[in-house]
Amino acid sequence: MSNETIEFLKDAAEVDQAAVQPLPCSRKIYVTGSRPDLRVPMREISLSDSITDSGTRPNEPLVVYDTSGPYTDPEARIDLRQGLAPVRQAWIAERGDTETLPGYTSDFTRRRLKDPSLDVLRFEERRQPLRAKPGRNVSQMHYARQGIITPEMEFVAIRENMKLQEARAKGWLDSQHPGQSHGAAMPAEITPEFVREEIARGRAIIPANINHPELEPMIIGRNFLVKINGNIGNSAVSSSIEEEVEKLTWGIRWGADTVMDLSTGKNIHETREWIIRNSPVPIGTVPIYQALEKVNGVAEDLTWEIFRDTLIEQAEQGIDYFTIHAGVRLHHVPLTAKRVTGIVSRGGSIMAKWCLAHHQESFLYTHFEEICEIMKAYDVSFSLGDGLRPGCIADANDESQFGELETLGELTKIAWKHDVQVMIEGPGHVPMHLIKENMDKQLDCCDEAPFYTLGPLVTDIAPGYDHITSGIGAAMIGWYGCAMLCYVTPKEHLGLPNKDDVKTGIITYKIAAHAADLAKGHPGAQVRDDALSRARFEFRWEDQFNLGFDPDTARAYHDETLPKDSAKVAHFCSMCGPKFCSMKITQEVREYAREQGLETRDAIEQGMRDKSREFVDSGAKIYSKI
Amino acid sequence: MSNETIEFLKDAAEVDQAAVQPLPCSRKIYVTGSRPDLRVPMREISLSDSITDSGTRPNEPLVVYDTSGPYTDPEARIDLRQGLAPVRQAWIAERGDTETLPGYTSDFTRRRLKDPSLDVLRFEERRQPLRAKPGRNVSQMHYARQGIITPEMEFVAIRENMKLQEARAKGWLDSQHPGQSHGAAMPAEITPEFVREEIARGRAIIPANINHPELEPMIIGRNFLVKINGNIGNSAVSSSIEEEVEKLTWGIRWGADTVMDLSTGKNIHETREWIIRNSPVPIGTVPIYQALEKVNGVAEDLTWEIFRDTLIEQAEQGIDYFTIHAGVRLHHVPLTAKRVTGIVSRGGSIMAKWCLAHHQESFLYTHFEEICEIMKAYDVSFSLGDGLRPGCIADANDESQFGELETLGELTKIAWKHDVQVMIEGPGHVPMHLIKENMDKQLDCCDEAPFYTLGPLVTDIAPGYDHITSGIGAAMIGWYGCAMLCYVTPKEHLGLPNKDDVKTGIITYKIAAHAADLAKGHPGAQVRDDALSRARFEFRWEDQFNLGFDPDTARAYHDETLPKDSAKVAHFCSMCGPKFCSMKITQEVREYAREQGLETRDAIEQGMRDKSREFVDSGAKIYSKI
Repeated sequence: MSNETIEFLKDAAEVDQAAVQPLPCSRKIYVTGSRPDLRVPMREISLSDSITDSGTRPNEPLVVYDTSGPYTDPEARIDLRQGLAPVRQAWIAERGDTETLPGYTSDFTRRRLKDPSLDVLRFEERRQPLRAKPGRNVSQMHYARQGIITPEMEFVAIRENMKLQEARAKGWLDSQHPGQSHGAAMPAEITPEFVREEIARGRAIIPANINHPELEPMIIGRNFLVKINGNIGNSAVSSSIEEEVEKLTWGIRWGADTVMDLSTGKNIHETREWIIRNSPVPIGTVPIYQALEKVNGVAEDLTWEIFRDTLIEQAEQGIDYFTIHAGVRLHHVPLTAKRVTGIVSRGGSIMAKWCLAHHQESFLYTHFEEICEIMKAYDVSFSLGDGLRPGCIADANDESQFGELETLGELTKIAWKHDVQVMIEGPGHVPMHLIKENMDKQLDCCDEAPFYTLGPLVTDIAPGYDHITSGIGAAMIGWYGCAMLCYVTPKEHLGLPNKDDVKTGIITYKIAAHAADLAKGHPGAQVRDDALSRARFEFRWEDQFNLGFDPDTARAYHDETLPKDSAKVAHFCSMCGPKFCSMKITQEVREYAREQGLETRDAIEQGMRDKSREFVDSGAKIYSKI
Repeated sequence: MSNETIEFLKDAAEVDQAAVQPLPCSRKIYVTGSRPDLRVPMREISLSDSITDSGTRPNEPLVVYDTSGPYTDPEARIDLRQGLAPVRQAWIAERGDTETLPGYTSDFTRRRLKDPSLDVLRFEERRQPLRAKPGRNVSQMHYARQGIITPEMEFVAIRENMKLQEARAKGWLDSQHPGQSHGAAMPAEITPEFVREEIARGRAIIPANINHPELEPMIIGRNFLVKINGNIGNSAVSSSIEEEVEKLTWGIRWGADTVMDLSTGKNIHETREWIIRNSPVPIGTVPIYQALEKVNGVAEDLTWEIFRDTLIEQAEQGIDYFTIHAGVRLHHVPLTAKRVTGIVSRGGSIMAKWCLAHHQESFLYTHFEEICEIMKAYDVSFSLGDGLRPGCIADANDESQFGELETLGELTKIAWKHDVQVMIEGPGHVPMHLIKENMDKQLDCCDEAPFYTLGPLVTDIAPGYDHITSGIGAAMIGWYGCAMLCYVTPKEHLGLPNKDDVKTGIITYKIAAHAADLAKGHPGAQVRDDALSRARFEFRWEDQFNLGFDPDTARAYHDETLPKDSAKVAHFCSMCGPKFCSMKITQEVREYAREQGLETRDAIEQGMRDKSREFVDSGAKIYSKI
């Protein structure tokens, strides 16, 4: 990474302008909770009027979940060098169970801070790190189990409801299909108490490090909206700090609920600081990647001490969840020898190599309780990594994969003993008919801890389209009960994603997650579909664009064939042209009926029913006036 | 459409060069059947050698299904003005049940041929049309029911097997997952007799009009490979003959098994002739579209006579299947009044409007047996249209949709009484949890006649990405038993697809269809996945590109990050860089084991098993030599 890039980042520190424009016809609104500093962001999409024979009818705006943070709020002052406002700071301080440390605990962090050559890279406005007071546990799970409803819990309750109560009162939920929940138990309305119960039970987590006060809390659990994760991160081969921050703001604009920083290249400590300070969403990492950097990529040289220092380094920066491959045990490794693609998880293969080289059980496994002690001192959540996930269809659901899953189940119970929040990572490459077995086995082994899967990809033969091969599996496993879906971009297996790839991956996964919410029958999930379909039926083109996941692309595609503004109000589209439009004809059919003096839909149906029964019974002519 | 375009098309008649290049490292092969003129095309992909410590090991080429016709055969002489070679001509003639007509039966066709202003558009090399001799039935179903195995049946048997026998002998099927077939009964090997039985039973169709001798026969049925359809067609709003022929050759290059010409604009008779004469795949149409053109788009003016003449016009051109919305009955129409998006099928809405305007039952329904007489005189297959399919999530699986489906079941039995081949069209917009009900109800109502669905789209809120919203539903319904999936492009609901959209739609649906074959456990379906995954594991980048559905895109994506040729042999990729590559590390793990003198995978596993057991039991060190 060139120094010019850095200078540019530090001095100008330009936020990506493409990421800070509000979406078309959208405005940021905040729903205030039980205290003035509990302001839950949502996006309100305003709609145009319906034009009917009897004049125009206004359409009420629609509220949707908003992951984009302050960036899309014109009121907010964005300065990447300052970072975002610490909205959770007071909540954390009030609990009185944390202490501000005089300096950073990690040796590595201290060395980096002393190194003047890094001044050009450094994020300057660092806060002093927080840590739990001795003997205290600051995890949301710990509070939940004490019966405490934290502001974070109230925040996610309001956020998950998305003004559901108002929508229900308007009758907007009446047309929704019941859904098939596969055992998920979603309440008619999410209450703070329900959030507390689910967290206490271990069935949901709120990744929220006390050193990440900029976070807008969100929840991951099977009884809540299905979430998606977007990965960013530079590598030894390419990309820069600035690009990564840009990918973050770009990814959350399109709907990433959490972001993992998988950087493996240079300066990842500094890159991470810039990302966390500017992130309103939880940030996850795979600490073993950085630990390996510290031993120059030689897996055999890894030690518990280096790993431990890395956990603390990242915990004090504010990482919200750690992927830790503690389930890769020595006796699992041989089970992979017969596989077509062996071990494809980076973390898994690093640990497997370490185990074999040292003829020892993994230090992640042997030191697991010490890791829990670190996690609960900062409220970092576990994302227990599936180091032995299948890397191809042939290897799906084999004994090494499921052997590791059983170990992850044991580790979940140990983490819960410490009141540490846990989610479980899952595959990978799995044919459709073997996906449900993954979900069911995970729920069983891990006692309903949230599942977080990568895809799964349902075939191996479409490099360049793995956002789609995996989006299919993601939608299905989301329906079956998976709580968070890790996105896959078109570049998977081939290269590093650019901004377009990130957007394509995010939108594909928003589709998968939403399709899952619909199939589960999540209360209110269908409101947006119905609103868009009504707009489509009434040829409200702008509304059709704006209610979609990607208004810009929808508009651009429409304009390719019919660029004129007049086409935006045309009662037909380029597919059929004016004469053939089925929707237009259907509206004419309804008008015929209306001419019969049948005003409401019910009346139309009843009237048409009678008339058609008449016809069917007697062969007499109906709609004689036509 | 400008005359320049036409002149260019007729005089130069350039075939799209992008569509006639063989795919990378691929060559066209032909498997000859029981007669020399029965040559079944396949694509053979050659692979590079594997590089191991013990030197290089060659990899045998892989054979894949090939829909591209003569276009990708360097030996073939392609001239759009001549059309393709009539490979089926002799087979049809030998049956001795057809007669060559002195001229075209359709009044409309005769008028068009007499009109000199159309000379510039006209495809000149027209053959005299064929028709069944009086009292004869030339449908594949009729032959099948007589116990006759036609060359078409033998052709598809060889084609479906794709040299499965050789692959099985090499042990390439050993690693395949059993699959879950949901009641499909796929034999270990497809025999001509099995094809005959399935067609006689009505569970599969070979769309093969006697006036389309250029056709390379293919089969649509639940016990065969899942197929996909690509739509082309100009509209009143845009596009030209040349573009449509280009979309055809482009679509089949990427894997369209059949192509529907949905043209609704000018000169659709002439456009259709160019398409059929140059198409190696079955062509389907929706005749009511052209019939409506003939009455200037005024649905009320449609008559049985005009529709009948249109069926004959298109049957004598060689259309292989007709979408006919005969299931839209007058008493179904009122059931749509309460819907969010009413009737969204063009054909369905046209017929609904006609029924209401005339206060009569649809002429498609009342004249159904006469339609059957026409179908069997040319062997045109029915694609019974779902005119009342849901146009949004809210309308899925409602009583109007299922009411029509029951009518389609009745019509299927009438068509079968005439030995006319039938498939049934399905939705549409359906949330995931309601998809299986569609499949199960169709199998039940239509006695296992092949199902042919559009998607279904699993959410309404992603305009611009409906290839993905529908690809998810398509993969699932394909697994449940759907025989053919009608593609959806990114432009769905927004505009007319261009060539890129056609390709994206086709590849997305190839993914869905293949994922379904894998999940059903179709014999040999996994061979290509395993070959690609082995190539991926061994860093055979070129093989990884070439074994995928879209080698060009995969290579382009790879080269964006690592353009150098050296990267094509690099034992790492841009995602992780050299130090972190899990596959590289896994190979090192295996080498460690190999150093122990464990040569084969089985031996490696056994040896590692013993050693790890040793370790687990006693804590003793394993791999002491490492």
